[in-house]
Amino acid sequence: MSNKMWGGRFAASSDELMQEINSSIDFDKNLYAQDIRASMAHAKMLAKCKIISERDRDDIIKGLEIVKNEIEQNKFKFSRELEDIHMNIEARLSELIGEAAGRLHTARSRNDQVATDFKLYIRDMIDLFVEQIEELQKALIIRAEQEVETIMPGFTHLQSAQPVSFAHHLLAYIEMLNRDKKRFLSAKERLNECPLGCAALAGTSFAIDREMVAKELGFDRPNANSLDGVSDRDFVLDILGAASICAMHLSRFSEELVIWSSAQFDFITFSDKFSTGSSIMPQKRNPDAAELIRAKIGRINAAYNSLMMVMKALPLAYSKDMQEDKELSFDALNNFSLCLSAMKGMILDFSVNREKMKIAANSAYSTATDIADWLVRKANVPFREAHHITGQIVALAERKKLNLNELNIGDMQKIDNRINSDIFSVLSVENSVNSRTSFGGTAPENIKAQIEIWKNKLQIS
Amino acid sequence: MSNKMWGGRFAASSDELMQEINSSIDFDKNLYAQDIRASMAHAKMLAKCKIISERDRDDIIKGLEIVKNEIEQNKFKFSRELEDIHMNIEARLSELIGEAAGRLHTARSRNDQVATDFKLYIRDMIDLFVEQIEELQKALIIRAEQEVETIMPGFTHLQSAQPVSFAHHLLAYIEMLNRDKKRFLSAKERLNECPLGCAALAGTSFAIDREMVAKELGFDRPNANSLDGVSDRDFVLDILGAASICAMHLSRFSEELVIWSSAQFDFITFSDKFSTGSSIMPQKRNPDAAELIRAKIGRINAAYNSLMMVMKALPLAYSKDMQEDKELSFDALNNFSLCLSAMKGMILDFSVNREKMKIAANSAYSTATDIADWLVRKANVPFREAHHITGQIVALAERKKLNLNELNIGDMQKIDNRINSDIFSVLSVENSVNSRTSFGGTAPENIKAQIEIWKNKLQIS
Amino acid sequence: MSNKMWGGRFAASSDELMQEINSSIDFDKNLYAQDIRASMAHAKMLAKCKIISERDRDDIIKGLEIVKNEIEQNKFKFSRELEDIHMNIEARLSELIGEAAGRLHTARSRNDQVATDFKLYIRDMIDLFVEQIEELQKALIIRAEQEVETIMPGFTHLQSAQPVSFAHHLLAYIEMLNRDKKRFLSAKERLNECPLGCAALAGTSFAIDREMVAKELGFDRPNANSLDGVSDRDFVLDILGAASICAMHLSRFSEELVIWSSAQFDFITFSDKFSTGSSIMPQKRNPDAAELIRAKIGRINAAYNSLMMVMKALPLAYSKDMQEDKELSFDALNNFSLCLSAMKGMILDFSVNREKMKIAANSAYSTATDIADWLVRKANVPFREAHHITGQIVALAERKKLNLNELNIGDMQKIDNRINSDIFSVLSVENSVNSRTSFGGTAPENIKAQIEIWKNKLQIS
Amino acid sequence: MSNKMWGGRFAASSDELMQEINSSIDFDKNLYAQDIRASMAHAKMLAKCKIISERDRDDIIKGLEIVKNEIEQNKFKFSRELEDIHMNIEARLSELIGEAAGRLHTARSRNDQVATDFKLYIRDMIDLFVEQIEELQKALIIRAEQEVETIMPGFTHLQSAQPVSFAHHLLAYIEMLNRDKKRFLSAKERLNECPLGCAALAGTSFAIDREMVAKELGFDRPNANSLDGVSDRDFVLDILGAASICAMHLSRFSEELVIWSSAQFDFITFSDKFSTGSSIMPQKRNPDAAELIRAKIGRINAAYNSLMMVMKALPLAYSKDMQEDKELSFDALNNFSLCLSAMKGMILDFSVNREKMKIAANSAYSTATDIADWLVRKANVPFREAHHITGQIVALAERKKLNLNELNIGDMQKIDNRINSDIFSVLSVENSVNSRTSFGGTAPENIKAQIEIWKNKLQIS
Repeated sequence: MSNKMWGGRFAASSDELMQEINSSIDFDKNLYAQDIRASMAHAKMLAKCKIISERDRDDIIKGLEIVKNEIEQNKFKFSRELEDIHMNIEARLSELIGEAAGRLHTARSRNDQVATDFKLYIRDMIDLFVEQIEELQKALIIRAEQEVETIMPGFTHLQSAQPVSFAHHLLAYIEMLNRDKKRFLSAKERLNECPLGCAALAGTSFAIDREMVAKELGFDRPNANSLDGVSDRDFVLDILGAASICAMHLSRFSEELVIWSSAQFDFITFSDKFSTGSSIMPQKRNPDAAELIRAKIGRINAAYNSLMMVMKALPLAYSKDMQEDKELSFDALNNFSLCLSAMKGMILDFSVNREKMKIAANSAYSTATDIADWLVRKANVPFREAHHITGQIVALAERKKLNLNELNIGDMQKIDNRINSDIFSVLSVENSVNSRTSFGGTAPENIKAQIEIWKNKLQIS
Repeated sequence: MSNKMWGGRFAASSDELMQEINSSIDFDKNLYAQDIRASMAHAKMLAKCKIISERDRDDIIKGLEIVKNEIEQNKFKFSRELEDIHMNIEARLSELIGEAAGRLHTARSRNDQVATDFKLYIRDMIDLFVEQIEELQKALIIRAEQEVETIMPGFTHLQSAQPVSFAHHLLAYIEMLNRDKKRFLSAKERLNECPLGCAALAGTSFAIDREMVAKELGFDRPNANSLDGVSDRDFVLDILGAASICAMHLSRFSEELVIWSSAQFDFITFSDKFSTGSSIMPQKRNPDAAELIRAKIGRINAAYNSLMMVMKALPLAYSKDMQEDKELSFDALNNFSLCLSAMKGMILDFSVNREKMKIAANSAYSTATDIADWLVRKANVPFREAHHITGQIVALAERKKLNLNELNIGDMQKIDNRINSDIFSVLSVENSVNSRTSFGGTAPENIKAQIEIWKNKLQIS
Repeated sequence: MSNKMWGGRFAASSDELMQEINSSIDFDKNLYAQDIRASMAHAKMLAKCKIISERDRDDIIKGLEIVKNEIEQNKFKFSRELEDIHMNIEARLSELIGEAAGRLHTARSRNDQVATDFKLYIRDMIDLFVEQIEELQKALIIRAEQEVETIMPGFTHLQSAQPVSFAHHLLAYIEMLNRDKKRFLSAKERLNECPLGCAALAGTSFAIDREMVAKELGFDRPNANSLDGVSDRDFVLDILGAASICAMHLSRFSEELVIWSSAQFDFITFSDKFSTGSSIMPQKRNPDAAELIRAKIGRINAAYNSLMMVMKALPLAYSKDMQEDKELSFDALNNFSLCLSAMKGMILDFSVNREKMKIAANSAYSTATDIADWLVRKANVPFREAHHITGQIVALAERKKLNLNELNIGDMQKIDNRINSDIFSVLSVENSVNSRTSFGGTAPENIKAQIEIWKNKLQIS
Repeated sequence: MSNKMWGGRFAASSDELMQEINSSIDFDKNLYAQDIRASMAHAKMLAKCKIISERDRDDIIKGLEIVKNEIEQNKFKFSRELEDIHMNIEARLSELIGEAAGRLHTARSRNDQVATDFKLYIRDMIDLFVEQIEELQKALIIRAEQEVETIMPGFTHLQSAQPVSFAHHLLAYIEMLNRDKKRFLSAKERLNECPLGCAALAGTSFAIDREMVAKELGFDRPNANSLDGVSDRDFVLDILGAASICAMHLSRFSEELVIWSSAQFDFITFSDKFSTGSSIMPQKRNPDAAELIRAKIGRINAAYNSLMMVMKALPLAYSKDMQEDKELSFDALNNFSLCLSAMKGMILDFSVNREKMKIAANSAYSTATDIADWLVRKANVPFREAHHITGQIVALAERKKLNLNELNIGDMQKIDNRINSDIFSVLSVENSVNSRTSFGGTAPENIKAQIEIWKNKLQIS
């Protein structure tokens, strides 16, 4: 920070200060496309309802198209004096088409206008995210298909618990992403009522056709209460909430990728594309992308909380506080989109060290549960007792520094004489995995069935 | 705080410390009913699948019924040594029915058990909240019907903007609550897959029937991936997120109730039931309930964030961290339910000072927009120009310290000669409100139609 | 949002994605001045310790000065390929001075470098905030001096409680700001250990002089543990936490300014400088700046929470997650600084409607406590009983629709015959305020003394 | 959840609802000791100032001692009708000593009373935490002394970076805890002004001696503004903020403990005291306490945020919202204290697998930086070039599947002919660690010096 710059602001005149805190053009220009789209729909409706002439409508639409082009070609001069995107566009429109521009704001207000623009923006983002989530699911299916027979230790408490298929682990994320997708889609449904025509807060005395505007802009219907229409920011909280939960899922996967790519686990290896070096330690291959995605939930969830705090205890209808709904949302949603893309890239990038996974699965007595289950099934031992017996067998193996399948049958029978050599059939990790055939379990036949289901849903040929 | 007590804990032995931090029975006993319900369904399924005998099943169910009665009659001795509700119940069951109790835990684990119990609990809470929200909507409809013709100033920036019907203001909250209800119902849909049978994380080798258990417990289906089944806490985040947004709506209404019941606004008066006195200022009538509801969003949203932080970067499958999902959730959901009930009580309690509202609506040039709209409609002035002319008229009224309808027609015509005496028809607050007939606007005819729609939806006769 | 742009990113190649998520130059260029300052100190030390030659040192320093000028004159070409500000500067330095540039990174790493740069930046911001807080306190003193005798209703629960001096109310914020200042200064103290020389994480084998660098950069000392030095972001949490609490204070004041400037309270009036109009309601004077400051706590507190979530459960030492410490912090701190300036502007801007305040203070039985206190003092009635008697007197006044000082002495004596006409001496708001002479109370003599104390502290002549 | 219970609440009468939402006795009874302590100080002062008689004072103090005993012996009947701890105690005092009890509330209000009580409570907790932090530091010193020569891989990005001493790693946490301690102590300093005597909000007309009460209760002074005194909850935010940052440090250590105790790292082993078994996998040794501490930051930080949201935009002075400051704070602070104790237990519990750590340190080319530094120091190669050369050597080692110290000198010289066999002196992890002698670096001599410093500070003999 240069104190000069800040000293400058610090001594700024009231007028400059007010403009600096009040102006939103620096960020709400992101909404230009939505603002123009909504204005066009509004103009068409005004003309149809005979509130403006058809000529005015045509001039307005033509003028707005010019403005749009100017913005997209970086020829538009945004002005902080004009405060926001709405006034910037209207002012330019006025230069281009004269008086007709002054008729566009009939029967609306900035309050309903900005609510409409932002809803359109959020809806576009939801559509994007749904598409990106599906792309991510497809990437997971591609990898899962390759790893059905790959056995890894399934962890609880980061302790080896029971062997599972690596594909099964990947498919767990498909399920999470599926809930995420549903969450976005249900947010879209709640969002999809059009506020345009609520005007400042009370509706308007012009005989407008709100149904028409709603349809034109792809909304299901106009919203039913004008005060609510301009006071509502639920749709922003909904998308940020959905993004936060999905980002949480991604952070869990990222944590796993970081742990798995450590030298100690060595389950996976990222290519140079998704790892970076060190300025001082030339040997490093850091999983930077995974670390960043793990961290991004911070700012995404923060955007949700920021808006929640802004909206807390805000009386109806519009208050200027609500202008704080945008900057952090834009930042969070852009970063979230980037996370989805980068995660897809990582999933398709890493190579799997199958041998290392299998060795890990074989250690740590991960088939102990299978002993207990064998005792229940084959020797009719109540589970609690079987659990107790198994504990003694594991303790024996620990003492002897042997794996479970290396134990002597006689030693096991000393612990419980209902044990016989059939028990060895459940002590290998392959048999353990194969035996988990209950619906949702890790047996390869289950996994293959799930993959088929997802390939159909995702229309992967 | 007594340092003695803390000194005690502080010097506690490792074993005591571990028990204190690890044991969950103090709070997860709230799940006893759900735990028993799920165990009964599990036992029935085990028997049907011939994994336990029908006799064991009957003993288990009978035993569990006894346990349930003991708990509900405060005769059950909860033990911290037994750590959690699952082990407490199983231990007691074992005392009651012996060996069969040890067979109940076949083909399941505490990981899937607690996920199932907690889902059942959350689902019950969703059902409760939906019912409470509808009750709240009914209360709003009752009050709205009484206040269709009551005119208040509609506020933006807490400045009088345009006159609105008080009923219209109340109906804005009906809309918010309707989104809230949908949000809870969509959360319920995503929740409604049964994790029982996922076992520790990998599924089970017993040939269980997960469809049967799911149906028995009112779930739509078993969940499809065992790792996801025991790792997922989305359903808790979903209900807490929905409760947070709804609590935010309630905080906005509460803020208004507090402001409206101030001596300066004096729009409403609470009865003694919903206001309290002061220990030192005998004249006070404090809107305590409104203030508390305004504040409760703090803890409800905090519960959401607490869990989000817990789940961040947590590797699959179950980790002990996830035990932190309950205490703050119980607290938040109970408080949220209390808010819904108390808000209903307040809505039915306050009396409306209609005269004060009307006087306020009449002041502050709240019909200025109507002048601008009149100029557009009657004199074909472009809105922007009409806006400018109106500004001059308001400035004139301010200088003369008159209301708009007290201005002289000649004075107005000096500002713009297109004005004629017909303009007085839009300067009363009644005419202003009546004119807002656009869909969603504040005109009484609209409001009455909305009330009818809601009476039908809510089945109010 | 233009889907085109996003579609573009969405289909980006792995390399582009990795660069986009990984590169920090877009935001860490804010640290250029601190980075250069730290590099100069490092070069001086390396030369003094004979690790580089004096000639290399001179070239480096001269080169860095050129780089700084280029950046400040917008002639520097930042490159995303070079990832961050450190590499951008070093690369340019290398172009300018050749091989010597390659010696600058001896005995340091980007891990300690970025920690040092960011600490310098945060420390600069703390200095700025302390200055701005003092400016704000001065503005409050200026206004307080004008309003010592201005009586307003003191509120609890937004109900009139007891009359207070408006100056007393303003001085409450001086106290809050004083705690804020102390909070920033104590954060600065904890921050002020220099991490440069911690290198990647383990220190260095070069015989560097960390004391010298620390002194050169204004730190109290080098930090004592190299692992901690590169892992620590407490200093960012500290400043964000202090800013959040201060922003909360500002949000409380802003809420009051919004309420006070409503037509119903009408205690203050903002000039045009700090209020804005409406696009549809020409009469509006919206307190936009106050509303925005009220809302800004959302993003400031969000930045704190974002970083807390990022740091949660992050193993030592540096992880890439920590790169997420900057963007939201820059945004929050800049906005906070703006809030301090704008609040100062507002405080000096509004005019006080003293008559309105006094009328409000006189209503609502705000001197009821004085009756109770009179009974205790003059008639030796226990407080609880006095409280009860006063309640009856207030009820009587309410029934008769009179103010307390309009009551008949006989009527009061019927309630309690220990009352005599001396009681009228405490029923005026002036006498009430004057009587609160306990230390910290609202009596004008107290306020004047406090103003003198603050004028001395703030060195206002 | 039993719908019956909730149905019950749901249909509760207004009065019941109001009591349920309004009453605070269920949680503020935690403040009984502080409330009694403050009342005793207040009574002494009232007597000294001749506001009550010495006899009344003696009766009050004697009565309060009885009440205290009743509470501590569980003989006190708390009543929800009496709303809070203050009224519960006063009501009982009145039963015990009659009229004098009614004089105790002279010249104070519940607003200043609760602020004082809660400040006393928070101050007690700060004292406790400082003590617990020092205990934790002592435990770290004990372990560090044992592990000075234990070499582990120092990680960045969870990739092996450079070898460090395990003691050095432990000492990093000492530094963090030291900042934590300072943070608590600076919070205590800001807190330590006594609000008693601020009364409801305006001070009092009684000639009280606030200095005397402040001293009696261990405060530095009375606070200077009565409105601020009853409106301020900064002290709660301060302790929760400090606890959150410390809990974040503990979560980082916990994450490491979880990772280190995985089968793949196997750096440490917990005894049975700090690990638990599984209901289905008898072999598991789960680091439950570490996982729980890792998670607890969720609720601690949530308490901070809850209160921040409550305080946001709250007008002065006291509002009922502020009653929401306690429950989550009590919960968070108790849990935080438990974390400190449990962490100490864990630190003293685990055994270190030194051989495993050393093997890990030896792998992954962790001495690569030492090659680069050797090139700079011995061959005068600029660091950037040395970095590049080292990268080639590491690549060679990777291709040959050799450790760095197993490379052939000739092969290295082919990469750069300035290399000679002296380079082998820096390729062992011991030499690498020993060479990091810069202040704060990981060389054993540094660590020993740091341990001595800490033993002195912590007065460990």
